Amino acid sequence: MEPPYIVIIASGSEITAGRSLDTNSGWMANQLFELGWKVKKFITLPDDPDLILSELQTLKELTKSKPVLALMTGGLGPTEDDYTLETVLKLSGKKSYSVEKAKIRLQRIYESRGKQYSDILPTVMRQTHVPEDCKILDNNVGIAVGFVEPIGVDSYLVCMPGVPSEMKEMFTRRLTPELKRIYPRENLVQKTKWLWNIGESLYQKDFVEAHRDELFSGVEWGVTANRGYIKCIFQSTDLAKLEKIISELESQYPKIISDDVFTFVHEELVAKKLTIAVGESCTGGLLGKKLTDSPGSSSYFIGGFLTYSNEMKESLLGVPSDILNQFGAVSRETAEAMVRGISEKTKADYSISITGIAGPDGGTDTKPLGTVWIGIKSPDGSIETHSYIFPGNRESIRENASNTALFLLYQSLKQRKV
Amino acid sequence: MEPPYIVIIASGSEITAGRSLDTNSGWMANQLFELGWKVKKFITLPDDPDLILSELQTLKELTKSKPVLALMTGGLGPTEDDYTLETVLKLSGKKSYSVEKAKIRLQRIYESRGKQYSDILPTVMRQTHVPEDCKILDNNVGIAVGFVEPIGVDSYLVCMPGVPSEMKEMFTRRLTPELKRIYPRENLVQKTKWLWNIGESLYQKDFVEAHRDELFSGVEWGVTANRGYIKCIFQSTDLAKLEKIISELESQYPKIISDDVFTFVHEELVAKKLTIAVGESCTGGLLGKKLTDSPGSSSYFIGGFLTYSNEMKESLLGVPSDILNQFGAVSRETAEAMVRGISEKTKADYSISITGIAGPDGGTDTKPLGTVWIGIKSPDGSIETHSYIFPGNRESIRENASNTALFLLYQSLKQRKV
Repeated sequence: MEPPYIVIIASGSEITAGRSLDTNSGWMANQLFELGWKVKKFITLPDDPDLILSELQTLKELTKSKPVLALMTGGLGPTEDDYTLETVLKLSGKKSYSVEKAKIRLQRIYESRGKQYSDILPTVMRQTHVPEDCKILDNNVGIAVGFVEPIGVDSYLVCMPGVPSEMKEMFTRRLTPELKRIYPRENLVQKTKWLWNIGESLYQKDFVEAHRDELFSGVEWGVTANRGYIKCIFQSTDLAKLEKIISELESQYPKIISDDVFTFVHEELVAKKLTIAVGESCTGGLLGKKLTDSPGSSSYFIGGFLTYSNEMKESLLGVPSDILNQFGAVSRETAEAMVRGISEKTKADYSISITGIAGPDGGTDTKPLGTVWIGIKSPDGSIETHSYIFPGNRESIRENASNTALFLLYQSLKQRKV
Repeated sequence: MEPPYIVIIASGSEITAGRSLDTNSGWMANQLFELGWKVKKFITLPDDPDLILSELQTLKELTKSKPVLALMTGGLGPTEDDYTLETVLKLSGKKSYSVEKAKIRLQRIYESRGKQYSDILPTVMRQTHVPEDCKILDNNVGIAVGFVEPIGVDSYLVCMPGVPSEMKEMFTRRLTPELKRIYPRENLVQKTKWLWNIGESLYQKDFVEAHRDELFSGVEWGVTANRGYIKCIFQSTDLAKLEKIISELESQYPKIISDDVFTFVHEELVAKKLTIAVGESCTGGLLGKKLTDSPGSSSYFIGGFLTYSNEMKESLLGVPSDILNQFGAVSRETAEAMVRGISEKTKADYSISITGIAGPDGGTDTKPLGTVWIGIKSPDGSIETHSYIFPGNRESIRENASNTALFLLYQSLKQRKV
């Protein structure tokens, strides 16, 4: 079967008015890429039944020439401006019915809140409805039921809630197996590596172009630029090819390559029962925030110091005023003294300090905007300091600095492991 | 003239592959909303000249029945996969020429980097090209020139670079005056207020529906849900009507209404030369990060403590172990003791503490998931503590807690001002 022409539709006036950002479409496109499919188009529409219907009619028309897979989010909620079900019924000429399982679930939710079944408003009940003769997608997070509606030969319209947590669970657990069944294809394997502080185009020239003939036949590749690192993605039905690419990548970039540092750092600190504390100047708490993003981080993150002013560097972390005066707050010496202070006050296994110039002001000829020193003290007592000049604006410099600090932690944990 | 049917197009395979998020379309829609226009559709396409051309042809066809304004970003860069100019030339049957001013600008940029004019690659030079007989939109940030191409009666295709900083400058400084000239209309005024810890639908029912007949004729309204607050937007050509709405809103919600707290807190702390320090448990640095997002925050933010573990609450902030044992880490007493500790150690004018259960684990019957205590000590020495039960997942609870802490700071600063 020809691969389907895939369109992703997001409905919601809050999106087309620019008051809310649609993150669902990109997330789904990414999932579909991992399944080996490319999306041809995103469409975003306001909550306007005429506009939605006309768009769906155009897609239905298109199914006459090729298989179409349309994935739509939003418009399944309980409010007046939720039109998805109504529009799909108009498109198909079908009637809807209430899914028994979803009705029981809704009833239980109401009862757990001390309400009666009879309190359920018709608009709320409508969320349990789907068109006749469609494939139902259960919602295990919220109330609105999703569904897969046939719209032509090998062509389907998938409707899912717009709430990201509901859509994601439904997509992963319910829709993905269904799509694999409808559009069978060879199993794809995907490998991802991160490269630190290197530009996308340099990587493309020095690695992808340089090895294209020798390594890349039958391999799809992609690259995403992030703050501090690029994510290199490789996809193929042939695992051996991918392993060869990864091994080449590792030998070409031994010092700047990593796996997902956020996941690795979390898992490794938990597994080895190691603790960590931080001291942040220019990042103002961003590193601590990132270290506590994951549930369970309390097993390793014990705390830290936000020493934004020089006075706080002295009083909270005992950085000698001599050092601040002689070398400045953004210096190897200050980063090192901060790390010693964090370690003394917290007794953590790992201590990390960040001090830098996030701007927009404060840059000089010798310490330009973006200059950041990062100190790291390992469980064996050794201290390393690293300096960087990060590009971009204030936000970019702060993101770069805190991500790179996690990369240094990754490297240190990795060395211990070896 | 009939208001134009507005379509926003983003081109870029990195977007339709889900590797990059399109923030341009929403930003433009928001700007257009402020000009009084609603967008009918967003379209996102991969870097595929056939797909782009076919979409533009559909829009050109549509101009036969109504005025169309299409705003497209991306595809004007120097790489192989930039197809916008080529596609527009195919659509219009026109030729392109190099804009003299842009050529000179490009030459200067090259010279400032120590390169020759002759070093400029043809693909780079292409960025100075526009179709014949179009309105040029200068690029003062980057190189690629934007343009407004007529595509039918009162209908235009606007092409701008995809780099957000370039597009935004071009939109604001070059395109907006042009749009006002092409589609003249009465001046709109916009007012925005924030309401804290109230649901969108409750606000809609209790305020908008309740006052619809009396206050809302000739007024457009919108609402955006954020973490901890909703943003209420009102728009009209009649300022008096807006002022009446705002005054009614203030009298109905005196305790939970605010302006943009991020801006107000920053400006007020700078203006009054007040300092602030924080102590964070469950937010792990997020409040410090938010307080240092704006350039110039070093004038008020001096530092803080990340006391994630109970040991750190004791050793860094001197929270008595009795309090932690008797009342727990998430309690009024701990929030108060934290605030006292912050104040003693930093001597800041304002001290703010946050301690709560961000989950997913740790909730109990008496302290459910989302329970957060916030303490605030004002310059006059008074301490207030507030408790909340925030909804959602870990990320949502942490965002809610840190935003609400800023709202408490807002209220305290506002009271001083009165």
